[in-house]
Amino acid sequence: MTSFNDMLQVKWDEGKSVCVGLDPDITKLPLAHLGLGEYDINAIKNWLGIGSRESAATAIVHFNEGIVDATHDLVCAYKPNSAFYERLGSNGMRALERTVAYIRRKDPTIPIIYDAKRGDIGNTNTGYTESAFDKLGVDAITVAPYMGGESLSAFLRYSDKGIIVLVRTSNPGAGEFQDLVLGDGTKLYQIVARHVANDWNGNGNCAVVVGATNPEELASVREIVGDMPILIPGIGAQGGDLEATVRAGANSKCQGMIINSSRGVIHASQHGDFAQAARKVVEVMNAQIAEVLTRV
Amino acid sequence: MTSFNDMLQVKWDEGKSVCVGLDPDITKLPLAHLGLGEYDINAIKNWLGIGSRESAATAIVHFNEGIVDATHDLVCAYKPNSAFYERLGSNGMRALERTVAYIRRKDPTIPIIYDAKRGDIGNTNTGYTESAFDKLGVDAITVAPYMGGESLSAFLRYSDKGIIVLVRTSNPGAGEFQDLVLGDGTKLYQIVARHVANDWNGNGNCAVVVGATNPEELASVREIVGDMPILIPGIGAQGGDLEATVRAGANSKCQGMIINSSRGVIHASQHGDFAQAARKVVEVMNAQIAEVLTRV
Repeated sequence: MTSFNDMLQVKWDEGKSVCVGLDPDITKLPLAHLGLGEYDINAIKNWLGIGSRESAATAIVHFNEGIVDATHDLVCAYKPNSAFYERLGSNGMRALERTVAYIRRKDPTIPIIYDAKRGDIGNTNTGYTESAFDKLGVDAITVAPYMGGESLSAFLRYSDKGIIVLVRTSNPGAGEFQDLVLGDGTKLYQIVARHVANDWNGNGNCAVVVGATNPEELASVREIVGDMPILIPGIGAQGGDLEATVRAGANSKCQGMIINSSRGVIHASQHGDFAQAARKVVEVMNAQIAEVLTRV
Repeated sequence: MTSFNDMLQVKWDEGKSVCVGLDPDITKLPLAHLGLGEYDINAIKNWLGIGSRESAATAIVHFNEGIVDATHDLVCAYKPNSAFYERLGSNGMRALERTVAYIRRKDPTIPIIYDAKRGDIGNTNTGYTESAFDKLGVDAITVAPYMGGESLSAFLRYSDKGIIVLVRTSNPGAGEFQDLVLGDGTKLYQIVARHVANDWNGNGNCAVVVGATNPEELASVREIVGDMPILIPGIGAQGGDLEATVRAGANSKCQGMIINSSRGVIHASQHGDFAQAARKVVEVMNAQIAEVLTRV
């Protein structure tokens, strides 16, 4: 099994730094263009309960397949967020399993990041690693740092998998705790980045999350973590600026970034051309990133 | 719909402060005593993949039903931890749905806490609230604080549901960040407790998690949050001391605690008497708590 880092490196060497977030919003799906039957379409429109959940899960799988077909040769990774599947209960989890399997069949070289932001005591985290790595079979997972590195050892011991730790997130209120200043003048998010880089990365499988909405914080974390991969959400719908992000986030090899866009790519069009519209957005992002990197 | 706080208050008034964590370890299930067929038992023993996942999910449901049948009149809440279901993929999520539905049918007055430790940006958290509250139908959920109160507003706006925030967790390495000292001498976990009590609790639906493994920290948080409910894991297998916990955790009404035990209750016996053994442990805990409370 190729490691997450090795898979990523191949994509970076091919000039791909865009990660597509497979976070389908059921209200924005082009229902008439997903090969669904009339029953499924009506069930979703009427949102009738159990039956419609199954129909919505089917629609999500068809939709994701369309996005993957149209973008797989352009991306460095796919990142399904668990919340968008869990909202449909067990039917949604089945849709997630089918989506991961579809990406694998389409192109087994693309790393899949499970954006789950999990974190519990050690014994319990074993359940999450089994879910993500042994059963679902993804290449990386996002985790929450609050309970400390000891609690995350169940994740960290998977040396071939990417363990991507929340450091400075992209939401407007991220600074409430993350920007708290400690006794020595360091901010909490910088401390977390330091612990990840210096203490948690014994297997060389750590990465960090820093939102594109904070270029200054991104540059500060890049300085702390060296060439470590940084997952950067917040481009597109959340308002992050691509040029500032690339300038702040590139590592010493002008690589090291997993630049995620979800809504901005997958819902670029809500009509029959949704897949081609998604492709177009990723193509433009790739070109913009390449252009900025020539000037960094 | 009765609110989480109102449901809890009824249980506390009945002298019940024990929460049973429904975190079944598949390797510890009394397989011969769960009404399973030979096919299911062999599949679980051989752990063959998809087929055995379905069998294991069935076993978990039967097991949980046995535990609920034996303890429902003694507890203040049940707390399934999502990791123990997610490890079985979509089959596990179905087992969780069936478990929640079973508790509801057995006794609709018992609050159900979904121990999921979720937390993402606002837009995404809406998926988790739909999953937990609208679909699964639990009464409360545990959430991670790192992304701040703004990100959790999707949870906090459910005024009838309990939003239980991680403050000082029960794992050995919990202090790595939670005990960091800020500029003014306060520790991070105390700051989190203050924000929950002072800023996030506008709907009066917040609670906090403090591990039983830290009586001193528990007393410090009780002082900060007033009479707010505190979910206290770590009794039993994790080594927390019940007397010290009750002394540190009781509020001004000698109530306010959701004292959780998982493994110590549900796997008290791994044989045909597992349900009765679980009942016995809860009975002893209830008696011990009552006794300590007479002396507080």
